[in-house]
Amino acid sequence: MDDFVLAGDLGGTNLRIAAVDRQGRLLYRAEAATPRYSDETRVVEAAFGLAEECKEQIGADPLAFGFAIPAIMDAAEGRIFSLPNLPELAGTPLGASLQAKLGLDVVLENDANAAAIGEHWLGASSEFSSSIFVTLGTGVGGGIILDGKPLRGPDGTAGEIGHMCVEPLGPPCGCGSHGCLEQFASATAIVRMAHELKSEFPDSKIIGASGLTALDVFRSGIDGDPLCREVFRRAGMYLGILLAGLINALNPEAIVIGGGAADGWDLFIGPLRAEIAKRAFHEPAERARILRASLGSDAGIIGAAYLAFSRFTAHSVNVN
Amino acid sequence: MDDFVLAGDLGGTNLRIAAVDRQGRLLYRAEAATPRYSDETRVVEAAFGLAEECKEQIGADPLAFGFAIPAIMDAAEGRIFSLPNLPELAGTPLGASLQAKLGLDVVLENDANAAAIGEHWLGASSEFSSSIFVTLGTGVGGGIILDGKPLRGPDGTAGEIGHMCVEPLGPPCGCGSHGCLEQFASATAIVRMAHELKSEFPDSKIIGASGLTALDVFRSGIDGDPLCREVFRRAGMYLGILLAGLINALNPEAIVIGGGAADGWDLFIGPLRAEIAKRAFHEPAERARILRASLGSDAGIIGAAYLAFSRFTAHSVNVN
Repeated sequence: MDDFVLAGDLGGTNLRIAAVDRQGRLLYRAEAATPRYSDETRVVEAAFGLAEECKEQIGADPLAFGFAIPAIMDAAEGRIFSLPNLPELAGTPLGASLQAKLGLDVVLENDANAAAIGEHWLGASSEFSSSIFVTLGTGVGGGIILDGKPLRGPDGTAGEIGHMCVEPLGPPCGCGSHGCLEQFASATAIVRMAHELKSEFPDSKIIGASGLTALDVFRSGIDGDPLCREVFRRAGMYLGILLAGLINALNPEAIVIGGGAADGWDLFIGPLRAEIAKRAFHEPAERARILRASLGSDAGIIGAAYLAFSRFTAHSVNVN
Repeated sequence: MDDFVLAGDLGGTNLRIAAVDRQGRLLYRAEAATPRYSDETRVVEAAFGLAEECKEQIGADPLAFGFAIPAIMDAAEGRIFSLPNLPELAGTPLGASLQAKLGLDVVLENDANAAAIGEHWLGASSEFSSSIFVTLGTGVGGGIILDGKPLRGPDGTAGEIGHMCVEPLGPPCGCGSHGCLEQFASATAIVRMAHELKSEFPDSKIIGASGLTALDVFRSGIDGDPLCREVFRRAGMYLGILLAGLINALNPEAIVIGGGAADGWDLFIGPLRAEIAKRAFHEPAERARILRASLGSDAGIIGAAYLAFSRFTAHSVNVN
């Protein structure tokens, strides 16, 4: 049996853990619902169960455990400052508790940073030494890779692109600000904007639909529904405004867009590119490749596996 | 005689060259008006004259020449893409021409990057390994220092913070975008906003003033003029909105604000800090020191001297 690590991704809905080898292949996947009212004990118990399942299936012991979690955190220190979607975990010694329960070295990482690292290791940005990853999910997360390394900053909080302001008087954001990118480009924002636009588009097919999702809005947009197309136009416009600014500030080689709402690519990429063409300087705008993420929902697990291999094993991993 | 370099700063108004030693001390300064309709030959001639003056005064030969210029450029390659304020120089082999005429190794650098390097070497951010420098002059320039090194990017254009959008439908910018920070926080913008607000503040003392400057607006603001205070409130608010976003994205240790319009500090720093408090995450916002630049208009020359010493001499310079 080759070396492997366990790598996990704690989402608001599901907790997933996989056994991952040095080539980044997922050898076995285990999944459970994220415990509701996730206090630390229940998350540790759930992770332990899935980890045991993976070990049993592989029939060997993993080298370490990398865990992507939706937290504002200092990954180097394992300090969790806050978890907007799982507030009960804030301030808990989650890493130490997992380490004790699993009997493994544990590395925690912000989920968007982990996904950025995954895409940089084996995904869309693997050919580039500098890239910006943005994930359009329930919220908007981000990760910045410079010179092949994630930019963390002294508090480990760098990369929170979703909470840069694109519209000063825009909708209030859970972070306390107004008009963050997250309020225009997340799956949540897609649905909110669709509801907001109903009065302007009284003939839209989505009027009257119950339990509307971002995917519904996308599908109706592809079918030509003007309201839904307008929603994605706005999302793309604001994402383009922000990315144009980041192109001017950081001159990245690539920008990788992932997350569930990236399914709307065909509807938002045009407006997005138009804003970059209008607002970014010519040379860095020509340079920056705008790419769709290629690892899907496994990006975070693959990035967490990369971190587990590189932090806790003497052997180097198969990096570019 | 100790080793020294020549370092220059090409502004829209003045061309300055100084002899600078390894401690960053300016041993002698020479200055001339920037040649109008600055074709390359005239700039090279003017620089040559000032360089000769410096050499004569010092009585020795410099090691190299560092030159800060207002260009979108690739400093590593010496390629000039564009110079918004001195368009005649775009595309010219300025570095090579200077090298031939002066008989010295020449390094060119974007003026805001040079100033960021100067402040990092000997100025306000010298204690910090990561900082963002923003200079509020005719335009708004920027430079980003990460891990003690300027962030350049593959095209050398990184750091153009002044051309990140803070108001999507804001005033048109010379760069082709709308609502760039430069349109709210430059000296030019201060004056424009003062004129725009006259109808709202019919009793303002500046109404009827001819040849209004940003300094006039600041002085009247300090004297309590409501229009002028509102102008700087807006400038501080937009600068704060942008810096809050950069704090979330980059988690810098320090932000250094320089340039002529930084004279308005007392009027804009309050609104600026309020936006950061509202819009940035707690830990990185607490971390980021907001500092006034300490090298004044010499920052670019000192940064250019640093680059001349470090690129062209085997000996290390006195860096932190």
